[in-house]
Amino acid sequence: MKQKILETMLRSHPRADLQRADKYADVLEALSLCRQVCISCADACLSEEQVAHLRRCIRTDLDCADVCEATLRLVTRQTESPHELVHAQLHACVLACQLCADECEQHASMHDHCRVCAETCRHCQERCNFLLGEISSTGVEEQGADPTDSPTFRR
Amino acid sequence: MKQKILETMLRSHPRADLQRADKYADVLEALSLCRQVCISCADACLSEEQVAHLRRCIRTDLDCADVCEATLRLVTRQTESPHELVHAQLHACVLACQLCADECEQHASMHDHCRVCAETCRHCQERCNFLLGEISSTGVEEQGADPTDSPTFRR
Amino acid sequence: MKQKILETMLRSHPRADLQRADKYADVLEALSLCRQVCISCADACLSEEQVAHLRRCIRTDLDCADVCEATLRLVTRQTESPHELVHAQLHACVLACQLCADECEQHASMHDHCRVCAETCRHCQERCNFLLGEISSTGVEEQGADPTDSPTFRR
Amino acid sequence: MKQKILETMLRSHPRADLQRADKYADVLEALSLCRQVCISCADACLSEEQVAHLRRCIRTDLDCADVCEATLRLVTRQTESPHELVHAQLHACVLACQLCADECEQHASMHDHCRVCAETCRHCQERCNFLLGEISSTGVEEQGADPTDSPTFRR
Repeated sequence: MKQKILETMLRSHPRADLQRADKYADVLEALSLCRQVCISCADACLSEEQVAHLRRCIRTDLDCADVCEATLRLVTRQTESPHELVHAQLHACVLACQLCADECEQHASMHDHCRVCAETCRHCQERCNFLLGEISSTGVEEQGADPTDSPTFRR
Repeated sequence: MKQKILETMLRSHPRADLQRADKYADVLEALSLCRQVCISCADACLSEEQVAHLRRCIRTDLDCADVCEATLRLVTRQTESPHELVHAQLHACVLACQLCADECEQHASMHDHCRVCAETCRHCQERCNFLLGEISSTGVEEQGADPTDSPTFRR
Repeated sequence: MKQKILETMLRSHPRADLQRADKYADVLEALSLCRQVCISCADACLSEEQVAHLRRCIRTDLDCADVCEATLRLVTRQTESPHELVHAQLHACVLACQLCADECEQHASMHDHCRVCAETCRHCQERCNFLLGEISSTGVEEQGADPTDSPTFRR
Repeated sequence: MKQKILETMLRSHPRADLQRADKYADVLEALSLCRQVCISCADACLSEEQVAHLRRCIRTDLDCADVCEATLRLVTRQTESPHELVHAQLHACVLACQLCADECEQHASMHDHCRVCAETCRHCQERCNFLLGEISSTGVEEQGADPTDSPTFRR
């Protein structure tokens, strides 16, 4: 239901990418759910008796929620999309989801909120990785999608 | 589906309000969808040829998205909930949804994204108003839920 | 320095309120600092040995940061400002700052981050209260700035 | 002044990196100012008569504000910092600031808000690039800071 609404929004955009609207709606739904579940998991962890053992889980939950939020806003916008930036933000989001899923999995047997959060992050990581591939396969490389090509990226 | 996941998260919280988990999940779903649709509508309006006539719509979309985002985070948290604050934030959210729905309705016949956004905001406004009533009916008044009672609120 | 830049931004706005630019920049600076300090305090509390005793403090820090963030974005925008909404959001922000200051003050003697956070929230509360008065004294009431006047506000 | 407060917050953190507190406070100040100025510039552009010519500028402003916001929250947190993620998010932020500065510079002679925004983004880009180097020089590579090393990064 929600995904249908998101797809309708994307299709009604003056510069809609009709071929990809369903895929984008799919990613937006995964990002929206992930950020929501991460905020919920961080708060549930904070109320657990063993909160001292959940510090890292709370940190990764909060980070994942914030990174998903920024990614969600960028991917939602279809006006003059800066592919290189969307690509870099999606990459950060894949890492955030992976780290959060890895951490929550360690507490999944103890806490249901961590089990659900791990599954949700894993799904979002997979969806973002899929979109990374989609964007990369549309000539973005020519715009310098590879971070190591970026003149502003120093090590 | 998503709502079931949000409800599972709320129910797995150590301080879960089991009687209300479904109602809260319902509000969280409405808030999450509304902020998402508003970000999408603002961006679609920005790409319309008549963007100059959509300034106020873009403004109300952006405001509604930001207010829903803050409200969503507060309502999601179940740890030591500050009822008076949640009440005040929900009130601001009801106004944001109402203003955005009113504005988008004026462009609904021209733009599908405005039509869907108006409907989504109206639903979120109604859900937040419902939760306002729920919270008010649980002794929050004794905590000073009425803004006019607040010593920090001057006119 | 920063405040000068914020004031320059406000003054360069096509619909700038030149009489109030300095006051608005003052509030924006207070809101920006408060949200930043609250995020920092929540994270510092999370790392304290006695984290279990700081649950409420972390919750109020996170809430205050999120409410300040939304308020900051609304107050920053000068295009077609919806005074009633800005008023309601400022009211929620005053409550968020007050709750966070009250809670952090209880830990101020133990933790420097709570002491600084309490002072920062108190300053932001005072600045937002000032702006509430400013907005109320500019005919906003006729637009129904009083929440209890709002047809969408039920108890 | 603000920076002193941010530094005090970082120094009072139980796991404070005392050697770097001033550098981190410097980056946090740049990120906080950049997100604020970008939100202000997007809104000023929206009110310009030639708004249709400022679509791309508004888009890059909004993106830069959202990416800076997420980066700001991650860099602020000192608890169990996930260096690889902070590195990837900083990289996305450098790109966001660069794109926004490049776009705003094209309107700098016409609009003061774009001129100030371009300068602010450029400063933030430089500060984030500096921190990227700092993080890279502290054994983060061993954690796979190079995106191309990341098993989750596919092209």
